[in-house]
Amino acid sequence: MPTFVQILDFIGTFAFAISGIRLASAKRFDWFGAYVVGFVTAIGGGTIRDLLLDVTPGWMTDPIYLICTGLALLWVILFGKHLIHLHNTFFIFDSIGLALFTVVGVGKSIALGYPFWVAIIMGSITGAAGGVIRDVFINEIPLIFRKEIYAMACVVGGTFYWMCHLLGMESFVCQIVGGVTVFVTRILAVKYRICLPILSGNEEEQEG
Amino acid sequence: MPTFVQILDFIGTFAFAISGIRLASAKRFDWFGAYVVGFVTAIGGGTIRDLLLDVTPGWMTDPIYLICTGLALLWVILFGKHLIHLHNTFFIFDSIGLALFTVVGVGKSIALGYPFWVAIIMGSITGAAGGVIRDVFINEIPLIFRKEIYAMACVVGGTFYWMCHLLGMESFVCQIVGGVTVFVTRILAVKYRICLPILSGNEEEQEG
Amino acid sequence: MPTFVQILDFIGTFAFAISGIRLASAKRFDWFGAYVVGFVTAIGGGTIRDLLLDVTPGWMTDPIYLICTGLALLWVILFGKHLIHLHNTFFIFDSIGLALFTVVGVGKSIALGYPFWVAIIMGSITGAAGGVIRDVFINEIPLIFRKEIYAMACVVGGTFYWMCHLLGMESFVCQIVGGVTVFVTRILAVKYRICLPILSGNEEEQEG
Repeated sequence: MPTFVQILDFIGTFAFAISGIRLASAKRFDWFGAYVVGFVTAIGGGTIRDLLLDVTPGWMTDPIYLICTGLALLWVILFGKHLIHLHNTFFIFDSIGLALFTVVGVGKSIALGYPFWVAIIMGSITGAAGGVIRDVFINEIPLIFRKEIYAMACVVGGTFYWMCHLLGMESFVCQIVGGVTVFVTRILAVKYRICLPILSGNEEEQEG
Repeated sequence: MPTFVQILDFIGTFAFAISGIRLASAKRFDWFGAYVVGFVTAIGGGTIRDLLLDVTPGWMTDPIYLICTGLALLWVILFGKHLIHLHNTFFIFDSIGLALFTVVGVGKSIALGYPFWVAIIMGSITGAAGGVIRDVFINEIPLIFRKEIYAMACVVGGTFYWMCHLLGMESFVCQIVGGVTVFVTRILAVKYRICLPILSGNEEEQEG
Repeated sequence: MPTFVQILDFIGTFAFAISGIRLASAKRFDWFGAYVVGFVTAIGGGTIRDLLLDVTPGWMTDPIYLICTGLALLWVILFGKHLIHLHNTFFIFDSIGLALFTVVGVGKSIALGYPFWVAIIMGSITGAAGGVIRDVFINEIPLIFRKEIYAMACVVGGTFYWMCHLLGMESFVCQIVGGVTVFVTRILAVKYRICLPILSGNEEEQEG
């Protein structure tokens, strides 16, 4: 029986892989290219985190992420034309993935003895770096640098995790508070179109 | 005296470096930029593999890859205008490199005790990831995601390697079968224009 | 009291972060995106070096780089429109950063027992790779591959470091000579518009 966290992990991986595969299909990638982009979107953030923390990336010890990406590719091949009607469903799934990946990243860093500001960065990398690699692969400016609150939700959630920890709460309480904060921040930001200010200090020039 | 494998390694490195340097020259890079792109094309895949496997990248212990890239740059500077007539020669060299790099990646992963599905991925990364970094550097969508059977040949070859291993064959037989499979798959795919299907599920949208 | 090297490190980090944030603002990134690009420009080179050398990246043990990037972002938000008048100041700061980062990279590699050609590459990666990641993130061809002497200054400085070492000079003398060489090479190259030759062997084709 998979645990509750494993089910959330599967949902998050599936949603992240779908987001990579859909963008790859918009660029007319072949099946293999779409699979690679989906896989890297799903596991890229965790892989960079694990390289920085000097531990073995999770997908190298458990084939579930490969299988999950394969199911996501199959889903897009079979139901691609109807995916657009499920936009809201995938937005929820993606936000679940973001919340879970962030909490996993924060928790793993704390367990290795890193200070909290490193843990918050690692949580954000786990949640958001896969999407950055995805956008580099499809040759677009990474979406998270320009639009909506995305990685910022990871930072907010990681900070709440930290505050719960400072208040002496138990580990699983910190995780739930952190994860829910990421999820709610992301949902509210999109619903009320909350954005960060655009930096526009020097339109006069193109290069530094 | 260099061994047979070392000669193949040199040929593969040279061909990969040439492919990076030629694409850099099409974008009007300077000599230094072309050298860097050629070097990264040649050693990028192996470096990512070694970071994931947590071992020291090969080019940090043997200067042959730097020298080989230097010779490739010299070759393009001197004979660049005539390189186009050698297109088929370099296609063969590139396929030799792809086959050898794949087998090296698979073998190294197995020697470190990883399961075969990890080894097949590592073989494909060794063979194909250098070209992905090259295409990111020249600001193009990675070629292998859209055109021809390339990294798929690594997956096929790695799978044959695995099957030979399952059948109890000796290590060097597995390597020869795996390498020849990569080489033949690549050659046949180009000769008969075998492609994977394009994923085109949702032309309606640009972003997920 | 911070040491002289720490002050130079702070100046270099600040200048590198400013260069990332300014380019991000030209692409209309939001504050968060600009912060990330600035941070990665400042610490990206050192992080790749530390991953290759298998040690923990410096920014994971000292929050000064995060703080420094925050100050750089604040600076651009407050004084962005006037930054263009400080172009020469930031060019000097950037060259100081390049020189210091190169020397740190070379020194760290030697201390770990790597041969000098590895140390020179690591010095160049420390100095120049952050700018490459920056340019990939803003979806431009990396500037250092096409324009001016930049990473080449690191190679020249690293080589002078090496020669001083061969001549039996003390460690701090090697560092000063290496750093000054990087700085002077960069300044002279820009002042006298010294460029490397463009590689233009095969305009006839676009792909290898």
